Amino acid sequence: MTDQPAPGVDAERLQTALREWFAPWVQSLQLRVERCALDEVTLRLPFDPALSRIGGMVCGQALMAAADTAMVLAIVTRLGDQRPMTTVQLNTSFLKPLANQDAWVTARVLRAGKSLVFGEIDIVSVNDGKSVCRASTTYALL
Amino acid sequence: MTDQPAPGVDAERLQTALREWFAPWVQSLQLRVERCALDEVTLRLPFDPALSRIGGMVCGQALMAAADTAMVLAIVTRLGDQRPMTTVQLNTSFLKPLANQDAWVTARVLRAGKSLVFGEIDIVSVNDGKSVCRASTTYALL
Amino acid sequence: MTDQPAPGVDAERLQTALREWFAPWVQSLQLRVERCALDEVTLRLPFDPALSRIGGMVCGQALMAAADTAMVLAIVTRLGDQRPMTTVQLNTSFLKPLANQDAWVTARVLRAGKSLVFGEIDIVSVNDGKSVCRASTTYALL
Amino acid sequence: MTDQPAPGVDAERLQTALREWFAPWVQSLQLRVERCALDEVTLRLPFDPALSRIGGMVCGQALMAAADTAMVLAIVTRLGDQRPMTTVQLNTSFLKPLANQDAWVTARVLRAGKSLVFGEIDIVSVNDGKSVCRASTTYALL
Repeated sequence: MTDQPAPGVDAERLQTALREWFAPWVQSLQLRVERCALDEVTLRLPFDPALSRIGGMVCGQALMAAADTAMVLAIVTRLGDQRPMTTVQLNTSFLKPLANQDAWVTARVLRAGKSLVFGEIDIVSVNDGKSVCRASTTYALL
Repeated sequence: MTDQPAPGVDAERLQTALREWFAPWVQSLQLRVERCALDEVTLRLPFDPALSRIGGMVCGQALMAAADTAMVLAIVTRLGDQRPMTTVQLNTSFLKPLANQDAWVTARVLRAGKSLVFGEIDIVSVNDGKSVCRASTTYALL
Repeated sequence: MTDQPAPGVDAERLQTALREWFAPWVQSLQLRVERCALDEVTLRLPFDPALSRIGGMVCGQALMAAADTAMVLAIVTRLGDQRPMTTVQLNTSFLKPLANQDAWVTARVLRAGKSLVFGEIDIVSVNDGKSVCRASTTYALL
Repeated sequence: MTDQPAPGVDAERLQTALREWFAPWVQSLQLRVERCALDEVTLRLPFDPALSRIGGMVCGQALMAAADTAMVLAIVTRLGDQRPMTTVQLNTSFLKPLANQDAWVTARVLRAGKSLVFGEIDIVSVNDGKSVCRASTTYALL
């Protein structure tokens, strides 16, 4: 994470983008931008009973939503914040439960071509740093 | 859709399950059970500005969440409502935008084995009946 | 399957394409074009000990290869045989074993946009018509 | 890659397994075990015109087959060579073409549970070390 993101893009700009670009329902995840560098963004997903089922298990739907959101921001670190894009595909594997704790959601651009961007997302529990969810994505640039 | 679902499972039971089993954040999607039969459930996802981005585009995160939720209920039509399960994988393709309208979310069990269940979800726009999103899933029975 | 495929495209043309476009290793699957219509192609994958593991189980690698190949031909039924394309993503679920028998491999175009084509493949055993493998794909038009 | 694989498992054992367990058609890929450690295996996929289309492009079908094969061996480094398993799902993204050169196929176990194993595969071109293909997989232990 040594390279600089696109001009004008920093954690504060991405935090603002979370408010400007995403649906209110997604904003209610309360994602916070923790780190950003060229091609990589880490968000924090705070534990919230509203996202949980019995036993404090964070629902998979919230993890997928956080993954997709983080990837959009990771692409912005490469292409800047003026490039319209759309999710083509998001494939998610749920490795183990996440319960009663925050998670870090790290999205990374694998390859940015002319019309398609490939990326991967790793969601780890803050307590032990172990992966609970992994996703791979393809985005189309419009 | 001629075969009967598992004993005690009907649309009303599934609507209750939506309130009992799912996180409040998922419940705020306001999904309604429209039809159920053995191995197949159709939910209605009402249009809601809270789920939308600029231009009334329903966010992909809501579609993925609806797909996962519908699949859980489809599995209940086969196995009944006492069987714990967990999502192993959910792969989603976004075929075209959905804007300013409700969607039907149909989940279908493709195969229910001893420990794994495979399924597919099709999300279509209510206005023209065209697919906007397709997903395939694997669930593990616990 | 009532609509006609693109001009000049029929089962014979697709069978020729299997020899012209695909790597010799893929040709050794001995795929045969059984049916074609607009947006849909069915190939037959003959049982062959060379594709099998102990017990006559057809290897998953052969099923994935057949799925990808069938999808290329299905896209040709829509766009004709002069359009270069590349596989972006292929997601395969293995529902149950296929042993000691032929399979039908049906690929269907779900949506053909300007730059991306979405499709699904269903592989069924010839003996009982049950799905053994399902795949979803995205192709980019070049 | 500091931890030792399961007892009796080394590169030579895995090379033998490639001959014993896999279909002749998969063996014709001529995969060679280059490295193995606990949870991780790297195979070399030699360039071969039989696997190529016009221009020396290695066909995607060969990359998927190599990915699946490498993952089986990576699981063996954790669980030993007596554990029957089956591929549940393999999701492959094709990032860029691979032409006229060998590839390294590295499979890594992300999580091995009681009944499911999750893994990821990265295929890079030998010449520049860049990813050409990434896959994520789920296997069921029988």
